Amino acid sequence: MSSTSSVGEFDLIDILLQSIPSHLRQDGHLLVGAGDDAAALSSLVCPVITTDAQHESVHFYRHWLSPRDLGYKAVMVCLSDLAASYAFPRGLFINLGVPAGINHEYLCQLYRGVGSALEACGGQLGGGNISSSERLSIDLFAVGEGYAPMPQRGHAHVGQIVCATGVLGQARGALHGLLHGNEVAPELLQAFVAPRARFDAAAVLNRCGVRTVMDISDGLAGDCSKIARASGVSIQLAPEHFVVPAALQRYALENNREPREFIIGGGEDYELLFTCDEHQLGQICELLPDVMIVGHVVPEGDTPVIGGAVSSYIHGTGWTP
Amino acid sequence: MSSTSSVGEFDLIDILLQSIPSHLRQDGHLLVGAGDDAAALSSLVCPVITTDAQHESVHFYRHWLSPRDLGYKAVMVCLSDLAASYAFPRGLFINLGVPAGINHEYLCQLYRGVGSALEACGGQLGGGNISSSERLSIDLFAVGEGYAPMPQRGHAHVGQIVCATGVLGQARGALHGLLHGNEVAPELLQAFVAPRARFDAAAVLNRCGVRTVMDISDGLAGDCSKIARASGVSIQLAPEHFVVPAALQRYALENNREPREFIIGGGEDYELLFTCDEHQLGQICELLPDVMIVGHVVPEGDTPVIGGAVSSYIHGTGWTP
Repeated sequence: MSSTSSVGEFDLIDILLQSIPSHLRQDGHLLVGAGDDAAALSSLVCPVITTDAQHESVHFYRHWLSPRDLGYKAVMVCLSDLAASYAFPRGLFINLGVPAGINHEYLCQLYRGVGSALEACGGQLGGGNISSSERLSIDLFAVGEGYAPMPQRGHAHVGQIVCATGVLGQARGALHGLLHGNEVAPELLQAFVAPRARFDAAAVLNRCGVRTVMDISDGLAGDCSKIARASGVSIQLAPEHFVVPAALQRYALENNREPREFIIGGGEDYELLFTCDEHQLGQICELLPDVMIVGHVVPEGDTPVIGGAVSSYIHGTGWTP
Repeated sequence: MSSTSSVGEFDLIDILLQSIPSHLRQDGHLLVGAGDDAAALSSLVCPVITTDAQHESVHFYRHWLSPRDLGYKAVMVCLSDLAASYAFPRGLFINLGVPAGINHEYLCQLYRGVGSALEACGGQLGGGNISSSERLSIDLFAVGEGYAPMPQRGHAHVGQIVCATGVLGQARGALHGLLHGNEVAPELLQAFVAPRARFDAAAVLNRCGVRTVMDISDGLAGDCSKIARASGVSIQLAPEHFVVPAALQRYALENNREPREFIIGGGEDYELLFTCDEHQLGQICELLPDVMIVGHVVPEGDTPVIGGAVSSYIHGTGWTP
């Protein structure tokens, strides 16, 4: 964990670390924290590792989010993959690419957001790098402690129900508004700016024996496709079951769009997408009342995801401005 | 480990993974490899984690290295931090930022270099992300299995000898030549293009009870300063003991420079820097004949590193073209 940077940048790392409460960067699971060649964690029976990148102009624009929200969201997005793997966060590592126009105060605010997310989810900051860069980039790596066998995308089977742990499409509605200069309701903005990694829901799904889970980061249709492909099945979406949040309904109406388009094309929801048997669903819904049925696992067909009346939307995953 | 990218980019990840021999991306220490939300490793009694970034125009220029060499070097640089922590590589994760001008074949070559470095050092590729980017960026994250207590920078004490595991300054000589358009001897270029993480030397130092180790990535003087600061001591450099490689001697002579400048200012050597007691040194040198004395640990003074006749060079760490 070194950097071919000036001494000033090493001092900057010290300043940024001070923006994080001390219990989030030393002791606890961290035996050796930031400041050495590597960090050391306490032993991990089932180490689970994930990585995520948030790059300016690709994943976000700076004027969309405060630096604190940006740090918070970047960490939540990364830790969401641990939640989808039933793993608890232990160590987080950050590589920052910093362009000339960003000052220390901006970065300290960003690190305060990182601290808030760690406070909410658990896990400690183990270190990282800072490099100069053309655009602001945040590359995150998280190490968690999971269970064996880990839930995976490839365990869905025909006859199962496909569900999400909460309402979808609000982040996509906000993104649409930001990209088109439309007015965006606070509920939609909140979903886009401050997603939460669903460790609470993961604990319930694990207890109920759910074995096929992923987080919805690239949109419901795209992520259903990944489960379908990994499991050798097709998924028939069930738009008739979709819960359309009121703010999304209003936004779609005002902008002459179909709200289910935002739910299916989606992206950045960070709810958990899972498949379960009918007998599991009742137990899950008792503990997680917001669970929404989104489709059914059917035998493998020509297309991995069949959306019926909304089939024209199923290819619209991701975004590139 | 998701990405807000097009389906084409998910296929690209598959193509890149195919550039790595299968035993380096499945089975072994990897219980769940690339393709799910997260990867899972077999249990780690002493997990050691490090991260490194290689960004175009900051850490390298593309015309300096073949894509294969770039991938190889990026991995070696990251794993070098594990060697300096006496840890064996278990899982490696890569976040690529890819600009428009780079084609799939370039990236496949880069991944072949990644595979070569993993083959040489151990460890398996667990996954990563690909994002579009203004400049090529390679963010790496490595998880290793170490020993407790891990060697650290803060354990040096007065009276110890400071050593490096091999010759220094050749990579800096090559860099100087590349930046100034001078002819560069193959020995210097080799040191710059294909550094090796010193796991062999780490095993010897560990066996001999050496407790203060780091890798020399930012130059001898800068890295000595870090040990001095972390240990609350000063380090007096001993340029009279420096071994000056013949190619570096020639390059310096031809370009009217002092070779010790390259050794002290250095950078990207990736040899191990360590402190030991006199009785350990004989045993170490028997097993590692290339070990070079570079200085002595002295009581804390006004400056953390005292270079005597070469004091004017000690601030020149890192580089920014």
